[in-house]
Amino acid sequence: MCRMNGSVITETNDLVAAEEPLEIRVEGQSVAVVMRTPGEDRELAAGFLVTEGLIREAGEVLDISYRPHCSLASSDKAAPLEKADREKKFSNIAAGISDGNVIEVRLKNPETVDRKKLTRHLFTSSSCGICSKASIEAIRQQFPPLEDDCEIEPQVLQGLPQSLAVAQENFKQTGGLHACALFDLTGKLLVLREDVGRHNALDKVVGWALLQGCLPLRERVLLFSGRTSFEMVQKALAAGVSAVAAISAPSSLAVEFARENGQVLVGFLRGEKMNIYAGASRLRKTYDHKTSSRGRTAG
Amino acid sequence: MCRMNGSVITETNDLVAAEEPLEIRVEGQSVAVVMRTPGEDRELAAGFLVTEGLIREAGEVLDISYRPHCSLASSDKAAPLEKADREKKFSNIAAGISDGNVIEVRLKNPETVDRKKLTRHLFTSSSCGICSKASIEAIRQQFPPLEDDCEIEPQVLQGLPQSLAVAQENFKQTGGLHACALFDLTGKLLVLREDVGRHNALDKVVGWALLQGCLPLRERVLLFSGRTSFEMVQKALAAGVSAVAAISAPSSLAVEFARENGQVLVGFLRGEKMNIYAGASRLRKTYDHKTSSRGRTAG
Repeated sequence: MCRMNGSVITETNDLVAAEEPLEIRVEGQSVAVVMRTPGEDRELAAGFLVTEGLIREAGEVLDISYRPHCSLASSDKAAPLEKADREKKFSNIAAGISDGNVIEVRLKNPETVDRKKLTRHLFTSSSCGICSKASIEAIRQQFPPLEDDCEIEPQVLQGLPQSLAVAQENFKQTGGLHACALFDLTGKLLVLREDVGRHNALDKVVGWALLQGCLPLRERVLLFSGRTSFEMVQKALAAGVSAVAAISAPSSLAVEFARENGQVLVGFLRGEKMNIYAGASRLRKTYDHKTSSRGRTAG
Repeated sequence: MCRMNGSVITETNDLVAAEEPLEIRVEGQSVAVVMRTPGEDRELAAGFLVTEGLIREAGEVLDISYRPHCSLASSDKAAPLEKADREKKFSNIAAGISDGNVIEVRLKNPETVDRKKLTRHLFTSSSCGICSKASIEAIRQQFPPLEDDCEIEPQVLQGLPQSLAVAQENFKQTGGLHACALFDLTGKLLVLREDVGRHNALDKVVGWALLQGCLPLRERVLLFSGRTSFEMVQKALAAGVSAVAAISAPSSLAVEFARENGQVLVGFLRGEKMNIYAGASRLRKTYDHKTSSRGRTAG
């Protein structure tokens, strides 16, 4: 890699965010190939199945293991599990696709899973999580309604970006990773995951929560390092999260979806400033005495 | 929408980037639902087919028209074409999915198209372009090798972000749109497209080029406003573009792919600085007299 500054060029050894495909199989059937940053692959596979609406709790999962790339789908020869825990977020500009890129989820009661959802054969990009719906009607999945209408302190939200920045040293190194972090209502960071794909980072957080046995995620706030799309708000709903905040902007459909489903949606959360696109009534009214004359009716 | 600054909250009318699904059909068959920002939908559909490897030139396309959402796939009742040209990049926080969200491409010689590529039934996210490959082997598509080894002036590259910023007023308004711009080797902006999805922005540029009859894109540079993934470099190759630059970081697989295919890949293009991850030998050596003692061997 060369670095150029003005007309001076120097050779250097740069870190870039690792991107590799991960094939996710369920009961021997390939359901997705996601472009992800290696690491926390078991969480990613588990979270993907949650936010795709296939499973809801850890008890439904029998096993999550790496498989040899070229194995028959029905093979029982699982690759060693310790590969699941390796961290390989960065690459010295990679030399090919590594092994450990096929992971299989086995379910306790596979017959209860909607098999139609498993017949997709799709490739999801590093930024893509809910690929494979065959029609416009199908983009909205059915998830149970939220049972979480917790109040949130605006001051807690204002502190989250700083907590994320402190925890997210990797991002500063490469600038190439999206982050998703889960906080409790006091602003305590519970888990942080990073990935070249923002949907993967979110799925890893949800998969972590599934494997910890703490789904649905009540009284929790998800923070994204970038923008918020429709899919990400829908994935948050799948995990039961009622409050989503992001450093950057939401899309129109993200706002619409959050309002329909009783979620809090905050964007442009920077310093003391934020935009509240949905659920403003759930922000605790510590600020009322300073409310401007225009009032607050949105949400 | 409410805006909060410290403890002061005000109601306001905010613009957010519009995100809506577009169903792309080819010869009556649904091939993708992409989450996109409405506008330039014909370009998006055309570019999607180019970068998916289905078509290579405008002569292969008979017609691109909106279809009623609930029409039979074989219906001939096309919606009015003028809808194709509407601009609806922003939404005052949208009130539902609009019409004009189904577009059909008809081909002059549909029998020559690889029908297997059309049997995908997938949903691609706003950031996703090459969904639907069923296995890891399939993520690398086959495109003809580049016939473009043009030299590029580093000074021209250094000027591109400023040209993009001047042209990209919308981004400044919402912060929610990705941009992709096509430049010639003098740094002249040829076309700029924006979308909630970076792959869509790229597909719109490629579709514009197809409809203008100027594919493959020789002696051109693509500039992305954000990061560069494997898919985006592969899409650039599909359009024949041999030089890709971005304001932010590439992924490891993007670097690897660019090197394999003889592409120039530049990242962190900011002011006079840039990182050259691939194809450094194609940057014109106007800087040689100031080259540092470490030399330049990468690319």
